[in-house]
Amino acid sequence: MMFNSPFKSRYMDLAINKAREAYRNGEVPVGAVIVNNEGEIVESAANSTISNHNPTDHAEMIVIRKVLRKLSVNRLDFCDLYVTLQPCPMCSHAISLTRIRRLYFGAYDKSYNLSDYSNHQKNFYKPEIVSGLSEDKCSRLLKDFFRELR
Amino acid sequence: MMFNSPFKSRYMDLAINKAREAYRNGEVPVGAVIVNNEGEIVESAANSTISNHNPTDHAEMIVIRKVLRKLSVNRLDFCDLYVTLQPCPMCSHAISLTRIRRLYFGAYDKSYNLSDYSNHQKNFYKPEIVSGLSEDKCSRLLKDFFRELR
Repeated sequence: MMFNSPFKSRYMDLAINKAREAYRNGEVPVGAVIVNNEGEIVESAANSTISNHNPTDHAEMIVIRKVLRKLSVNRLDFCDLYVTLQPCPMCSHAISLTRIRRLYFGAYDKSYNLSDYSNHQKNFYKPEIVSGLSEDKCSRLLKDFFRELR
Repeated sequence: MMFNSPFKSRYMDLAINKAREAYRNGEVPVGAVIVNNEGEIVESAANSTISNHNPTDHAEMIVIRKVLRKLSVNRLDFCDLYVTLQPCPMCSHAISLTRIRRLYFGAYDKSYNLSDYSNHQKNFYKPEIVSGLSEDKCSRLLKDFFRELR
């Protein structure tokens, strides 16, 4: 099965490692990885809203910024993004603006659904979306984190 | 009239100056200013997607980042944002995440409407919105820019 190939799981595993790093820092455990069209990992990032004192520093925003800087490009149409949680509207639109080719996400976020995304993005570029990759692992981390908080 | 008070126009005029700066740099002319609850201008920014090689570096994202860093806070619930163009979905959600108190924008963006914003943001904090402040000046800049491009 293409979408569950060992490679794709391996990329998501790295994103999960970054989510664990966020967890250890007291951040909502979300991690992201960007992979180029050769299958090479370009950059990864952990959610850092607290440590960076910036509520917009979601893992996706950071990893996008890092890749743009590293490669000195302004389009990521040759890149795929792996992220452990369904991106929020801010990150979804950043994905759209940077023309990321394909989005793989793990856990679903019930605050919004995919059709919201589609409706909202109707005038904009939309990546291919593969949802629920390694969903159990991704959502377990989030559940553990929020359970500890209570 | 509260919404057309000379103060609010003065803040928008500064945002328009930043939009002109963007124009001179070959960027889509959008500018933004953040004002605190004492009416003091905290920071301003010009759209810099081209110069920063980052399509997510809209004026709003930059000015939010600058203010968070400058004041070492992670909430902007005591701040108002003035921006010359209706924020895109990315910036709208960044405004939501940072709890900006009030949003004043100039020109309308036909790619999306205010009810899209509202629907999309239904699970999220939404600022007070004052739309169409100095609309003519703001939209004229944009029209001039896109006319020159053709």
